[in-house]
Amino acid sequence: MFQKPDTNLTNALRAACGAENVITDAETLKPLGRDYTEDLQYEPALAVLPATAEEVAAVLKLCNDARIPVYARGAGTGLSAGSLPVYPGVVLVTSRLNRVLNLDMENFQATVEPGVINQVFRDQVEALGLYYPPDPASRGSCFLGGNIAHGSGGPRAVKYGTTRDYVLNLQVALPTGELIWTGANTVKNSTGFNLTQLMVGSEGLLGVVTKIVFRLVSKPQYDLLMLASFSGAGEAAKAVNEILLTGIVPSALELMESRGVELSANATQTPFPFQEGAAYYLLIELDGNDQEQLYRDAETLFPALEKCRVMDVLQADTADQKAKWWKVRRSIGETVKSASIYKEEDTVVPRAALPALLTGVKEIGNRYGFESVCYGHAGDGNLHVNILKNQMTDEQWNVELPRGIREIFELCRELGGTISGEHGIGLVQKQYLDVVFDPIHFQLMRGIKQVFDPNGILNPGKWLEA
Amino acid sequence: MFQKPDTNLTNALRAACGAENVITDAETLKPLGRDYTEDLQYEPALAVLPATAEEVAAVLKLCNDARIPVYARGAGTGLSAGSLPVYPGVVLVTSRLNRVLNLDMENFQATVEPGVINQVFRDQVEALGLYYPPDPASRGSCFLGGNIAHGSGGPRAVKYGTTRDYVLNLQVALPTGELIWTGANTVKNSTGFNLTQLMVGSEGLLGVVTKIVFRLVSKPQYDLLMLASFSGAGEAAKAVNEILLTGIVPSALELMESRGVELSANATQTPFPFQEGAAYYLLIELDGNDQEQLYRDAETLFPALEKCRVMDVLQADTADQKAKWWKVRRSIGETVKSASIYKEEDTVVPRAALPALLTGVKEIGNRYGFESVCYGHAGDGNLHVNILKNQMTDEQWNVELPRGIREIFELCRELGGTISGEHGIGLVQKQYLDVVFDPIHFQLMRGIKQVFDPNGILNPGKWLEA
Repeated sequence: MFQKPDTNLTNALRAACGAENVITDAETLKPLGRDYTEDLQYEPALAVLPATAEEVAAVLKLCNDARIPVYARGAGTGLSAGSLPVYPGVVLVTSRLNRVLNLDMENFQATVEPGVINQVFRDQVEALGLYYPPDPASRGSCFLGGNIAHGSGGPRAVKYGTTRDYVLNLQVALPTGELIWTGANTVKNSTGFNLTQLMVGSEGLLGVVTKIVFRLVSKPQYDLLMLASFSGAGEAAKAVNEILLTGIVPSALELMESRGVELSANATQTPFPFQEGAAYYLLIELDGNDQEQLYRDAETLFPALEKCRVMDVLQADTADQKAKWWKVRRSIGETVKSASIYKEEDTVVPRAALPALLTGVKEIGNRYGFESVCYGHAGDGNLHVNILKNQMTDEQWNVELPRGIREIFELCRELGGTISGEHGIGLVQKQYLDVVFDPIHFQLMRGIKQVFDPNGILNPGKWLEA
Repeated sequence: MFQKPDTNLTNALRAACGAENVITDAETLKPLGRDYTEDLQYEPALAVLPATAEEVAAVLKLCNDARIPVYARGAGTGLSAGSLPVYPGVVLVTSRLNRVLNLDMENFQATVEPGVINQVFRDQVEALGLYYPPDPASRGSCFLGGNIAHGSGGPRAVKYGTTRDYVLNLQVALPTGELIWTGANTVKNSTGFNLTQLMVGSEGLLGVVTKIVFRLVSKPQYDLLMLASFSGAGEAAKAVNEILLTGIVPSALELMESRGVELSANATQTPFPFQEGAAYYLLIELDGNDQEQLYRDAETLFPALEKCRVMDVLQADTADQKAKWWKVRRSIGETVKSASIYKEEDTVVPRAALPALLTGVKEIGNRYGFESVCYGHAGDGNLHVNILKNQMTDEQWNVELPRGIREIFELCRELGGTISGEHGIGLVQKQYLDVVFDPIHFQLMRGIKQVFDPNGILNPGKWLEA
C-alpha cells in the first residue's frame, strides 16, 4: 500500500523546501521518532521542515502522489503518541512555521503559524493587555499547532474553555496540495459546515494546519490562589461541585492526589505546605478585574469547602508562593513519569461524577494490582490517571493492565464521559476506542477521512485509517 | 432521482408514527410549506409528526429506502428558507418531540428534545437559578432543534457565544435508521472527530437531531440597560469597538438604525425616547452578580462613548422600561417585513470592520437604488441588512438587486467576514455561496454530505446536494 521515501522524493523535497531543511541522517532523525508518551520510539525515514504554507502544501502533494505517509509534528510533547511515524514515512516538522503574523488589538484576534510555542504566544498577547487562556501543562514548549491537533485544554478550561473555543479560522493544507481557509475571522458564522471545528482535534488525519486565527479576551488584572486539603477522595471531589454550585467560576480548580504532590515537590525541590493526613489537595484560582471581589468570592467558597470537611485552606500571599504551588501542580505528570514506567489515562466525566470515577479507578486498581496517581482538571471532570508499573511483571503490564484500563474507560462511558478529555487518541488509546464508538460512528469518521485524504497518507497507523 | 410519497409510504408512516400523526390534507399542509423567509411558499406532499427518536429514525429509513426527500422542520421561524420542501417530499415536524428530559443541577446540564421552544426551556432553566444564554429574536416560538440546525445566535452572543457554544452532545437519526450520540456529556472531549460541532449549523443536511445535551451557566442576578444615540453610522460603529476595548464585555451590544426603530416603535405602539437628529442607536446591556459593579462599569463606558461623539446616553430606570426598549429592538425584523416586501441579509465581519461594512452597504444601496434598514448584533460584527422593495420594479428586484447583494457579500469577505452569522444559507443565500467558498471547499462539504446521506434525501434543493 504505502511506498517508502526514495531518492526521487528526497530530491523533490529538497527542491521544494531547501536541501538544508530535509533531514536524512539517523542521529538527527531519532528524536523525531518519539514524543512524551511512555517509552515509545519509531524510526522516521526522513524529515522535512517547510517554512511556509505553500511549502507544506507542496510536501503533501509530493507524498500523496508517491503514496508516502506524512506525519505532521509540532514540539513532540504529545501524550497519546499522535505524531509518531508508525510507518516509515516523512515527518513534517512545523518548527520553522513559527511566526506570529498579526496581533489585532481592535478585533481581539491573532493570526499565527502552527510552530509558535504556546508560552511565546501568550507572552506576546499579554504584553498587549490581552489574554489567550488555553494553557496545557507543556505550555513552555508545546506548539499551538499541536494544541489544535488535540484540542488541548489545561487548568484554565474550567472558566475559559479549551483551545477549540479560541479558534476562529484555520488555513489547512490538503493532500492534493491545495490550501483552504475553513471559516471566517468572525465569532459568529452560520455559513456551511463547520470545517474549523472538524479540524480541531483531528490529530493530523485530515490535513495540516498552516495558519490559525485565534480570538482573544481581555487580560484579567488580578488573581488569587487557594490550596485546600482533604482526607479523602470523596470529600475533595464533592468540594469541586460545591464550589461550582456557588455560582463562582474559578479560573482553575485542580485536584491533586498527595502521592503526586510529594513526588513533584521532591523532584523539583519546591517547598509545599503539606498537611498531615491529607490524601488530596485542591488548587483553586480566582481571577478578575476587581481585587476586592476576589476576596469576597474566596469568602463565599469557605462554607462550600467546610460542607465537604475540608482539613485546611491556605491562601498564597505572594507571587512567588503562587508560582511554587503551580510548579508543583504542573510538574506532577513529568515527575511520575521519571519515578516509574507508567501509562497516563486522560479520563473525563461530567464533573459531578468525579467521586464515582475516583472511587472506581482505585477499586479497579486494587483488583488488577496497580498503583495509580490521580490529578487533573477537576472542574471539568477531567482526571489524569497515571498508572505506575512499579513491581508489575511485563505479563501483568502488557496483558492484564489493558483489561483494567478498559474497565476504567467503560466506567467513564457509563458515567456520561469519554476516554480522552485533552490528550487525544493517537496510538495508545486506539485499542479502547470501541468502548465509546459504535461501528456506525467509525464508519462516519472513516468516510470523512476518505473525503479529505483518499489515499490515507496522513498519519497512518493511528486510530483511524482511510 | 427522487420519488414522490405514495400510498405505500403513507401507510408505512402511519404504522410507524400513528395514523393521526401523518398529515395529507392540503389545507393543513399549506403552512408547512413556508417559514419567515420573504414570501416563499412550497407544497409539501405530506407531513409526519414523530414523537420519539426511534420514530424519527424509522421515518428516515422508510424515506431513504424509497428515495423520498425529507425536510426536518421546527417551528418554521427560519430566515433562510432552510426547512422548506423544495421537492415534493415528507415534512418531518418536530413539534411532538417537545420534552425537557433532564435538568441536571449538579452538572449544569440539560437534555432536551428538539421541539422544545427556546423560551419554554430558558424559563425552566432560570427557575432553577441557571441560565441558557442563546436568545434569537424568535425565542418565544422557535424550537431548540432549529437553533441547532442554524447555529443560532442572538443579542447575548457578544458575551456568551451562540447555540454552538452550549451544545455538548447530540443524538442524531441517520438516513439508515440508526441513532448515534455524537460526543459525550462533558465540556472537554478530545475523542475522535468532533461530529457534534459538525452537526451544529448543518441545516438538516446530515441527519435529524433527536436529543440535545446543553451545558448551562449560572444565572447573572442583575442587569443594567443603556441607550446611546449617534448622528452617524461611523460614530455608532466606532463606539462598539471603543466599548469592547475598555475590557468590559456587555451582555448585549445592539445597533439599530433609527428608521427601523421608528417602524418598530410605531407598529408595536411602544414608547421610545427618540433623540432628534439621531441616525443610530446602541442598546448596551451589562449583567453580573454585583449591582454596584454594573454601575461602575457603566461609568467606565461614558468616556468611550464620548470619544465617538455620542449624542445622549439614557439608562433604563425600571424593568418595564427595559422590556420596552428590548421590545422595540426585537420587533424591528418583523416590522420591516410587514412594511414592505423585503430581503434580509445576515452579514458578519470582524467587529472593527463594522464602520466599513455599514458605509459600504449604504454606498452599494445608493448605486443600485435600494433602501436598507440596518440593525443587529454589533458587538459580534453581525449586521442584519433589511432591504425594502418599496417602489423597485420586479426587474430591479429580481435581476439587479442580487448583483447588489453579491457586492455586499464580496465586501464582507474582503473585510474578513462571511455571508451568514446566524441565519444560515438555506435556499435564499445559495446563489451567493461561491463568494466565500472555492470549488475545493464545496467538494469537501459534498463529500461529507455523501458520507452521512448517500442518497441525498435530507433537505434536497438547498445549498448542498449529495
